[in-house]
Parts: sequence; C-alpha cells; structure tokens
Amino acid sequence: MTAKSYARSINLPTENAFKNLQTARRFAIDVGGSLAKLAYTATVHRKTSLVSEESDDDGSLYQVSDTDETIVRLHFVKFETKFIESCLDFIQQQSDATKSPLREKCIKVTGGGGYKYTDLIQEKLGVQVDREDEISCLINGCNFLLKNIPDEVFTYQRHENPEYKFQAVDMNVFPYLLVNIGSGVSFIKVESEDKFERISGTATGGGTFWGLGSLLTKAKTFDDLLNLAEKGDHRNVDMLVKDIYGGAYSTIGLKGDIIASSFGKAARSPRTPSQSEEHNFKEEDLARSLLLSISNDIGQLACLYAKLHSLKKIYFGGYFIRGHPLTMHTITFAINYWTKGEIQPMFLRHEGYLGAIGAFLKGATEEDADKYSWEENFAGSSGLAHPKPSRQVLSTTDSEFDKLEFDRLEKNLLPCPLLLDGDSYLPDTVDLTQDTLAREYWLQCFKDSIEKQEEQAIKSQSTVDGAEKRAGQFKHKYLDRLETLERNPCAYGSLNVRGLLDMRSHCLKEFNFTDPYSQQKQFENEQALKHLPKRLKDLDALDNTEERTFALARGLLAGNVFDWGAKEVAAIMEKGDFNFEDAESKLQDRPWLMDNYDDWMKKRSCSKNYKCCVIFCDNSGADIILGVIPFARDLLKTGTKVILCANSKPTLNDVTFQELSIILRFVSLICPVIGKALSEGKLVAMASGQGSPCLDLRYIDHDLVNKMAQEQTDLIVIEGMGRAIHTNFEAKFKCDCLKAAVLKNRWLAKRLGGEMFSVVFKFEQGTA
Amino acid sequence: MTAKSYARSINLPTENAFKNLQTARRFAIDVGGSLAKLAYTATVHRKTSLVSEESDDDGSLYQVSDTDETIVRLHFVKFETKFIESCLDFIQQQSDATKSPLREKCIKVTGGGGYKYTDLIQEKLGVQVDREDEISCLINGCNFLLKNIPDEVFTYQRHENPEYKFQAVDMNVFPYLLVNIGSGVSFIKVESEDKFERISGTATGGGTFWGLGSLLTKAKTFDDLLNLAEKGDHRNVDMLVKDIYGGAYSTIGLKGDIIASSFGKAARSPRTPSQSEEHNFKEEDLARSLLLSISNDIGQLACLYAKLHSLKKIYFGGYFIRGHPLTMHTITFAINYWTKGEIQPMFLRHEGYLGAIGAFLKGATEEDADKYSWEENFAGSSGLAHPKPSRQVLSTTDSEFDKLEFDRLEKNLLPCPLLLDGDSYLPDTVDLTQDTLAREYWLQCFKDSIEKQEEQAIKSQSTVDGAEKRAGQFKHKYLDRLETLERNPCAYGSLNVRGLLDMRSHCLKEFNFTDPYSQQKQFENEQALKHLPKRLKDLDALDNTEERTFALARGLLAGNVFDWGAKEVAAIMEKGDFNFEDAESKLQDRPWLMDNYDDWMKKRSCSKNYKCCVIFCDNSGADIILGVIPFARDLLKTGTKVILCANSKPTLNDVTFQELSIILRFVSLICPVIGKALSEGKLVAMASGQGSPCLDLRYIDHDLVNKMAQEQTDLIVIEGMGRAIHTNFEAKFKCDCLKAAVLKNRWLAKRLGGEMFSVVFKFEQGTA
Repeated sequence: MTAKSYARSINLPTENAFKNLQTARRFAIDVGGSLAKLAYTATVHRKTSLVSEESDDDGSLYQVSDTDETIVRLHFVKFETKFIESCLDFIQQQSDATKSPLREKCIKVTGGGGYKYTDLIQEKLGVQVDREDEISCLINGCNFLLKNIPDEVFTYQRHENPEYKFQAVDMNVFPYLLVNIGSGVSFIKVESEDKFERISGTATGGGTFWGLGSLLTKAKTFDDLLNLAEKGDHRNVDMLVKDIYGGAYSTIGLKGDIIASSFGKAARSPRTPSQSEEHNFKEEDLARSLLLSISNDIGQLACLYAKLHSLKKIYFGGYFIRGHPLTMHTITFAINYWTKGEIQPMFLRHEGYLGAIGAFLKGATEEDADKYSWEENFAGSSGLAHPKPSRQVLSTTDSEFDKLEFDRLEKNLLPCPLLLDGDSYLPDTVDLTQDTLAREYWLQCFKDSIEKQEEQAIKSQSTVDGAEKRAGQFKHKYLDRLETLERNPCAYGSLNVRGLLDMRSHCLKEFNFTDPYSQQKQFENEQALKHLPKRLKDLDALDNTEERTFALARGLLAGNVFDWGAKEVAAIMEKGDFNFEDAESKLQDRPWLMDNYDDWMKKRSCSKNYKCCVIFCDNSGADIILGVIPFARDLLKTGTKVILCANSKPTLNDVTFQELSIILRFVSLICPVIGKALSEGKLVAMASGQGSPCLDLRYIDHDLVNKMAQEQTDLIVIEGMGRAIHTNFEAKFKCDCLKAAVLKNRWLAKRLGGEMFSVVFKFEQGTA
Repeated sequence: MTAKSYARSINLPTENAFKNLQTARRFAIDVGGSLAKLAYTATVHRKTSLVSEESDDDGSLYQVSDTDETIVRLHFVKFETKFIESCLDFIQQQSDATKSPLREKCIKVTGGGGYKYTDLIQEKLGVQVDREDEISCLINGCNFLLKNIPDEVFTYQRHENPEYKFQAVDMNVFPYLLVNIGSGVSFIKVESEDKFERISGTATGGGTFWGLGSLLTKAKTFDDLLNLAEKGDHRNVDMLVKDIYGGAYSTIGLKGDIIASSFGKAARSPRTPSQSEEHNFKEEDLARSLLLSISNDIGQLACLYAKLHSLKKIYFGGYFIRGHPLTMHTITFAINYWTKGEIQPMFLRHEGYLGAIGAFLKGATEEDADKYSWEENFAGSSGLAHPKPSRQVLSTTDSEFDKLEFDRLEKNLLPCPLLLDGDSYLPDTVDLTQDTLAREYWLQCFKDSIEKQEEQAIKSQSTVDGAEKRAGQFKHKYLDRLETLERNPCAYGSLNVRGLLDMRSHCLKEFNFTDPYSQQKQFENEQALKHLPKRLKDLDALDNTEERTFALARGLLAGNVFDWGAKEVAAIMEKGDFNFEDAESKLQDRPWLMDNYDDWMKKRSCSKNYKCCVIFCDNSGADIILGVIPFARDLLKTGTKVILCANSKPTLNDVTFQELSIILRFVSLICPVIGKALSEGKLVAMASGQGSPCLDLRYIDHDLVNKMAQEQTDLIVIEGMGRAIHTNFEAKFKCDCLKAAVLKNRWLAKRLGGEMFSVVFKFEQGTA
C-alpha cells in the first residue's frame, strides 16, 4: 500500500471540518511540509430576533420576530499536508453538491510545500494558483493577530502559576523578531507593516528534532517524540558542567547543572567496547536531550540576532512550537538563559495559522483588517489544547480537525477614551488561570447551568423545527469547551468569567440560538414600563435631595437584582411574583460591602454638576426601566447629558441597543423629562459594540468613543456584576466613576467577604 | 575487564614518549576529557664541536674538539586521558631509576578533566597540584604560539592549491576571538595579554558530534566517525532548500542546495510505517550530516559573537578540530557562508597544546616567553599529520605519541631592520605546498641525499661509540619526516626548501650529529688560508678599479662554488684537487643569468662610498676566505665599515661565527688591512642568530640588529643559494642590496632558465 493510497483510504472529511463551503470565497492555502492550512471567508446566515414597534393587537408594546442575520466569518482549517488531495476533493464535491462553484478564478497559495501541489490544486478546484511569498504571508498574518486578537500573545513559564501569561494587545507592535521554527528556522526582523527581512536562519529546526528523533527513538509521530521527551531526563545523556568539573566552573560563571556538552555522555569509549555497547540509553532521555539541544541552540541564535538588531520582542512560531508546553518551556529557558532574563520570549495562540491568514488577507483586500474588528469565535475554534497525537488531526470525527474562526464585527472597535491607562488596562478582575479555586468553582458553575440554558434555548424556539436537537448540540459543544478548559485553562487565552460567558454565547449562536431571552426580555420590559409612572412619581415626591439621591442609588441596585444570568435569582424570578419592592428588600443595608455612597452623595450635593455621564446598562426589564432610567433622569435634571449604552448584540437578558431605543421612546411618552432630553439630544442611547454580559473597554463602538470625547464625559457609571465586578472592578478612569452591582452569586459574595445580595457601590473620583 | 584494568594492561610508554625526563622540570598538565597534554622543560646535553686556537703540533691552525652543549627544550606530549595513570607511573619510575626525583614541589594542572585526577597526580608524583584556570591557560598558550611560532596560523580551503595557507606572525595579535571546541564550545574574546573573557559558549560541540555519532553509527572512535563523514553525502539525510521549493528560494536569497533542515529527510512518516522502517540511512551520510550540522551551528554562533564584539579574527581550536581537514572544511564553509566571505577562520598548527603551554608558562615565569626566541624542533615534533585513528595515540611504538618540542634559543631574535616591509616579508621564494612539481623534486632530492648525510655523519664521529647506529636513526627519522610531508606537505607549516634543510639539521642534532662537517670545514679553512696571500697579491696587482671590482665580484662567486650542501659540487670536491681557479672557470660568462653587475660597478665607481656593509656569509673554506674576505677588504679600503655575519650554530659546511672569528684573526696576520680594520672595529664578525643554510630575516640576533642600525648600514650583501635564492630572492630592502649566488643545482638552474653554475648577481638600490 503506497503512502498515497493509504492516505486516500481515510474517510473524507465531513461538513463539520470545512464549514460554510456554500458561501465560501477567497480561498487561500498555506501548504507546509507537514501541515496545510486552508483559509476562506464565508457569509453565515442565521436566525436572530428583530424588535419592532409595530404594535400587535395582543397588547404588546413591541414585537419580537425572527429575522435573518448575516455575518462574515473567516475560516481556517488545519490538516496534514498528505491529505491535501482528499480535502480538495471534498471541497470540490461540496461545491458541486450545493451548486455553488468556486466563485473566484484564483486561489492564493503560500508555504514551502505548496510548489509541488500547484498542479493538483489547479486541477481539483479548477482555479488558477497565485503564489504568495511565504515570509510576506507569515508577517502579514502575524501583524493581523498581534493587532486584532486579545490574548493572542503569551509568555510561558513552566511550574509558575499561571504558566501562561497573556499579554495585552500591544499598540506599538513594531519592531519585533519573529522566529519561525518549521523544518528549518527563519529569523525575521519586522520593522513595520511593509518593512521586514529574513535576516537569517538555521537548518537546526523542527525537522532536525523529528529527523534525529526518528533515528534515535521508535516514536511514531512528532507528538509521540515530545511525549517521550516529557518523560525523559537529559542528565543521563548530556555531559553537565559538574560532570567535568565536579561542580560549578565558577570563574566563568557556569553552574554545575548547566549542560556542557549535549549528548556528551553518549560518546562511545573506544577502549571499552564491551561496556559501551551495553550502555543503552533510554529513548525518553535521548528525546529530552535532543529537544533541549535544539531549543537551546535556536534560543541562543534568536537572542544574538535580537541583540544585533536591537530588538526587544521575540515571537516564536512554527510547527516546532505548536503550543507544546515542553517546547515552549525549553525555548523560554534558553532565552532567559542567554539574555539573563532580559527578554521573555513570546508565543502566539494561533501561530500555526500565520501564513494562511497572511495569504488570505492578500487575496481579500476588501476584508481590510484595519477597517473592522474581529472576534474569535470560541465555538468554531479549537483553541490551544494540550497537543494531541497528530494522527488524530484527520479522523472520521471532525471534532479533531484543528480550526480557527474569526467573526467580522460590523464596526471597528476602539479603546474607551476615559480609561486612565489604556495600555495597562485589563478588563478582568480574576484570572482563573491563576486562581485555581475560583476556576474550579466557575467551571463547575457554568457546567451546572448548561441544562437551564438548554431549556431556555428550547423554550425560546418552541415553534421552530429542530430546536431540541440544536439545543442538545449546544450543550455538547459547550460542555466540550468547558472540559477543554479544565484540561488547559489557557486554551482560549486568559481564562476568566467573561470568557466563559462569551463562550456560552458563541456556542448558543453556533446552533442558531442568537437571542434565547428575547420573549422574556419583552415581557419584563413591558411589565417594568407599567410600573415606571408610579416609580417616577414616588421619586419625585422626595423633595429632600439626600433622600432622593439615596432612593435613586438604591433603585439602581434593586433593578440590578433582576438578572436571569444569576442562577439563584433566576430561581426566585421563575416563580413570577417577584417585584421591585421585593428586590429592594433583598438588598443589603448600609454600610454596604463596598460603600463609597457618602462620597457619591457629597459629589451629587455640590454645586458643580457633571457635563456628561455615560452609563453602561445591564439587564432588560426592571433593571433598565425602574433602576437606570430614573437614575439617568435625575442626572438630566441637573443639566448632565446622559449616554445610555447597551449591547449591540443580544446576550442573556441584557438589554440590547435595539430594545433600549424602543424602551426610551415608550418612556418618553410617560416622562416629559426623558422625552425632552431625547428630542434635544441630551439623552442618547448608543450601542456599546459588544455582545457580552461583561464589558471589555478595549473594544467599544467607535461612534460611542467619539461621542464620549465630544461630550467631555466626566462620569462613567458601570452597572451589574458582569460589567462592574467580573470586569472593570479594578479599572481606573480619568473621570469620576461609579460601579454599582448587587452580588447575586453566593460563592462570589462570600469570597468578597459578603453575603448574597451584598452591594458594591464603588465611587472613585477621576485622577486625571 | 574494567576500563581501568584494560587501560593499565597496555604496555607502558617508553623513553621515546617522554624524553629527557632525567632533567625534566616544571611539569604542567592539561587534562582534557579525552586527551591529556603533559608539558615540561628539560635541559638537553649533547656533543658539539668546539673550535679553539690552541695550535697542535700537527700543523693545524686551530683545533676542533668535542664539547658539551646544553640547550633548554620544552616538551609537550599528548596521550589519551584514560592512560594518565600509566603515564604518571612511567614518569615516576623514570624519576626513580635515574635518581632524579621530581625537582619541584608542585605541578600545574589545568583542563576540565583535571579535577578528578588531582589526588592521583599528587599521590603518583608526590607533588602538590596547583590548579590553573583553564581559559587563562588556553589564552596564555594561544598568545605564545601566535607571537612566537612562524607558520603557526593557517586558513584552510578544501580543493584549493594550497589547501593550507599559512599566515605570517601577526605583530598585532589582539583583539581576536578564540573558539575552543572541546566536548562543548567556548567563545573567548581576547583583547590583550591580560584582558580576555569567555563571552559565551554552546553545549553543541565535539561531545555532541561524538555522542550522537556513537548513537547513529557503529564508529568505534571519533576519527572513525570523521572517516565515515568523509565518505558520506549529507543530501541523503538533510532536507535541502530545493527539496522544499523545487529550486532556490530566491526572494530571500537561499540557493537550492543550501540545507533547509538538518536531518529533515530522516523524519519518520507517521502514516507509512512500513515504508519508513525500511528506509535505512547510510551511516556515512548520517555522520556527514551530523558534522555539517554541528559545524554550521558553531560557525554561525562564532560569526555572531565576532560581529557583536567587532572582532575580525577568529581562531578555532579544540579536540573537535585537531587538524581534521573535513572539520576545518566545514567550519570554513560555515564562516564563509555566515560572513559572506568577510572573515576567514584561522586554525593553529598546535592548537591541541594551548592549555598545556599556558599552564607550563604560568609555572615557569623564568622561561618568560618574551625574553627568548623559540624554535620548533621538527625532529621532536609530530607535526600536523592527517589524523590517525586515535587508538594509535598510545601504542607500543612510541612514534605514535603526538609530541611537540620547542628549543629555547639563547637570544631573543628580532626582524632585520633593513627590510623594506617587515610585516609582509616572507623569506621563502617557492611555496612547495603550492608548487607541486617543485615539491616533488625537492622531496626526492632530499631523500636522495640522505645516505650521503648518513655517511658524513658517521665519518665525522669515526672514533665515537654508536655513531653508526645513531646515523641510522637519523636516516630513519628524516625519512619518516619526508614521508609525512609527502602525505601532508603542510604538516610542519608552509613547505619550502629552508624547512627541508632545517628539518634535516634538526634530525641530525636529535642523534647528536651537531656539526658533521667540522673537520671538513677545518681542513678547507686551512687550505684556503694558505692560498689567501697569493689571492690578495693578485687582486692588489689590478690597479684598474673596474678590473679589480670585477675580479672581486667574480671571486665572491667562485668562492660560492665550494659547497658541500650541493650534491653535484660535493661529488667534484670529493676528488680533492678542486681549486679556486677551477671554480672560477666553472662560472658562467657574462651576461649572467641575472646580471645587475653594471649597476654595481657604477655604484662602486662613484665617489660616494657606503657607510657600512653587512655581509651574510655562506660556506667555510674558499668561499669565506678567498671570496668574501677580499671582497670585504675592498670595501674597507674605501672607508666602508663591514659586518661579517655567520651562523650562530653549525649547519653543513657553512662557516660559523666561532670559526669566522678565528679565521679573521689568522687573516689579520696575513693582511694588515684586515688587521687594522679588526683592531679599529671597522670590521666585525657577528653571529646571525641562525643555524640554517637559509636566512630568515624575521629572526636575527638582536645584537646584530642593533649594530646594523647603529652603523647606519646602507648595503646588505647576501651570498649563496640558501640565503639569496631559496630565501630572500624577492626580499626588498631600505638600503642597497647585492644578492650573489652560483646555481649549483641543475634542476633549479633549469627552472630559472639557466644551466649548472649559472650566476645570479642581483643588485638593487634601496627604495627608502
């Protein structure tokens, strides 16, 4: 059986491997010696909810209907190069079956391995092959990831907690050194988008590791070899400094356990044949020694080139790295050793896709990376798992295909201009990669909530075909992702509650549950609107400013009790008779768990009022209508402009921009203050650009960014657990900031030293 | 059988391995992981001839008698470290046997391997071990060789002619990078005698080559592995650029046959187990690939460190190099590749001894390298042979011991101040490493003359015991050396006639034939002195200046016909009735082969006379007495001071300084002009500092150097084939120069376009 026939006998990949081929365009392929990476863009059509004011005769204030949503998604699929023919066949078959022949006349091809497949690709796909320079694609792809993907970059320190340290997106990407370790190694100096140069290389690379490894061990795959290395002890093979000197060679600063000569102990003694022939080295020790030798060597060269070219940042990528912890460990050790700790080598979560991304971008100038923001789709991306034996890369179950998907966001998102220090800002309060207890709790917590989510999903599409099946698929997918995170908490970047929430959202959307709470939100909004007149009247009756200010603050907090995202509260709310007063009564009495209310009061009482306040809202229903809107109304009354921000896309029962706009129009009918402010532009609803229960202020809608700056915003209010506790709790702003939330998770409340329904009312004056 | 008992069962080394132990002092040892190098100094007592004026009643003018000569010699012996115990035992036994216990209380020890032998050395030799820093010794030894030993440094270019290019002693040694490739590799930056630093290292070194080589092949020794590599083709194992790209990767300037991934083709394919298991790589290809991989790596690092530290000179040494042509080739290839030809790596003939030399010098401050000049004893030094399988390093025939000997010269020798450009001066006219025809001729010529030399040696010591045996040993030794040179013409540096002559001289002295021509010279001097009065009278009778000047020049040439060093002339002279007139009649008629006589005549006729003339004399007998002395006498008459230079040590029938002094005193009895000049200091005899039939003007006696400068020497006369043809033929001087010689070798005469007894009379005016 020849290699070719053997390869072809493998089952063809199914639709799950190459998704959305029906609408696929702009194919690009990076053919490496071992792995090929296919890239394409596709338009994904899915159902979502449309909110419209057209009143029905059922008494609803507004209508929720199904509508089609189209998003643009970048697909990247990795498979073993030797299966390229099967994969091309599959693509062609799909194209035929769906009567959607490949739309373009050409396909971008890059990668050293691509030369010999040029004819095959042309023949199979009936397209012309446009070769793109490998290095150029690599850098293009690298720049795209560095600039666009949060948590793309990380440092790795074995046995530290966390082992992975993800780096913020660096606004000053250039210059850097990219060390691409494929079969051989390239050192590429990158000075700008257009200015880069392969300054050198070495032939001692991944091919050397795998080649020598194949000669020295019985390892069947590259990963087997790494697994061997993981178990080995190089000291049985390498000659250490102490083996020669009996200890350290201190006059030249060499410690005793430094390797003096790789494989030095394996040298055959010419005088003692009987002995040396008996001396069989363990395969795992040899593999370990080999890995160290090659890593040290590449690390040393990388440091020298970085030094010669005054580069402070070194990124490592290529087949040799592929997220292998041991490999990253040895590279990190080497770089630390050779730079005396001055440089931390950095790795990329998606380094395997650099060439494919670059080639794709070259063929898709209209997808101009700079025009849009991109979001990694956690549901469609395999993540940085502990490496699996590569024989599973192509298997009959497509779940083993390594995939990466980016969704194109409609707008370009920018950092919030109110942040005190945008460069050092990190949204998340607790790093679950580091905090083991918290990680265990939250992973279990999200696991426990899956069935509820499944139920809600089915309920929201009770009249739609296949909802149950899809909900089951959601459950399976999300569970799989959570289990991946249990194994490697850093699989999708730094792990935090925000990521877990977003991942759930992505998994729901993957199976067409774009807005499972739409009806629930509608119901609650309608209910809350009914209570608004009385609420406003009660508040207006308080003519003592202090009393009113407190009532507004308390109302803001009471509103925030209504949250379907909090399991324990959801259980209460499900009973159906939970009202605003009940919520108020649940609230902790002052002094609150975190209580800057007096400062807030003082500020509100002074003569100088805020110019403009931006409020990041949380939930639909009582929260937005009875809590936030009266609070905003009071600010408006004191001459402060108010920007109400809601999510651009639905998630949980969070109020969306669409919903907020409709709510405000109804409120303006009830309240002239709101009506006037709306008509005069003193009150505006804006889309945050986000679709998460949390708030990442590095990526908000650029119109919002402009508006904030334009109105000289001097107060930011962030409401709710997701936005003010899980994220932004530690965030510092140039202007005054109020973070208000009710703790609706018993574990978290305890952890913060409080109880269920403890209140966080954190007011901080701007420091700039 | 354990390694130890196995090693001890080898026959102990004999006296020939560790020579002159009776007078050995200042032991130092460099214990490497594989090889140990022992160093010591010894006083060598040997018979030489003493010339004295005490007249005997046999009518002799002077007496030649045997006397003892004592020279100081540095011995370096290399052996496998594992035999250190046997060697120490032998040294101790010798010490006991000759009742010459080790004179010092301590021994200098350096080298990484020395730690574990400290106790053994102390116990065996009963001395205290003084450890010296390895790097410091290495540099000390390196500086000593760079500064003192001609042809120490060479570049290596495989397939070029010559492959070895020896470098002149560099007066500006610093700064340089020393790359010492032992088991591991050290990069040492050397800025001055005292300022050096190990700037880095790598564990990928000789131990890695031998270690991995032992795992990948069945090679029994390091040299076997190199021999395998010599036969291999790395392209069967390495993945080349063209294997990936189908050709060159021209956008980044990588040629197709550049290695992209060392061992890349050896990678096991996980899908085709049956195939890959069948794919057996040839051991020689693997060895070649391994050698290239390691050499490339070290070369690349060396270039980077050189660049980072702005070093233009890189010397390579260590066990990995050891003069192995293939290793030097791969290193040279790598350095050329990585520096784009800007740097030529340099190798040292004696690099294996750096540490030992350095350690020795540290223990022997009174042997202060700067106070003396040192001469490599070709008879006692193994030379840079094609590497032998290392199992022969210690064998029952001691000839396989690798040895190095330096003789301490009595004085510090300095470059001749009259040279136009001392830095670029090279004494030798023909480079026999490059000129294959000439090499073949001369090697054969010297081989053919061995029996004559043997005869002369025996004859000169007809009354001394063992002369025949020793002469036989001489013959064997010199033949061995010539055969070594046939195999590797560069074994002792750049090959030239001077070296062949000196080597013969060294071999004769090695077996106590210090002055085989002493009686012959005595006889001829006596004969010539008898003819001097008539010769002077005849010359004085010529009152025409032109006639007399020509007669003097012709006489100088006729005298030079008398030369026992020229085989064909020796045959004539052996008949016994060859006189000065016969010699004159043999001379070529004008125009001579090289004839600047008219210029010389013109110069001699002009009113301005020379201030001082230095004459480098050639042979005893007619040459000095009837040729040179009348010539000098004429110069003295015109007011020119004359310095007659003769060899400090005997060689062939060349007149020595001792003999010249006595001759001049006799001549002064015959000729008042000479007598007056001698007594007034206008004529002086001086020792040249040399003991060679040739003349290396880089190394002459410092008193002579001072005298030349002091007397404002404005004419240099160099006489004879050895001094004016084989060497200095192309030399340029600041002052006027006359090179006069008669071609007494038919082959050489032909080559220069002449016949036997063709005349070279090369007069050049000074250019400064």
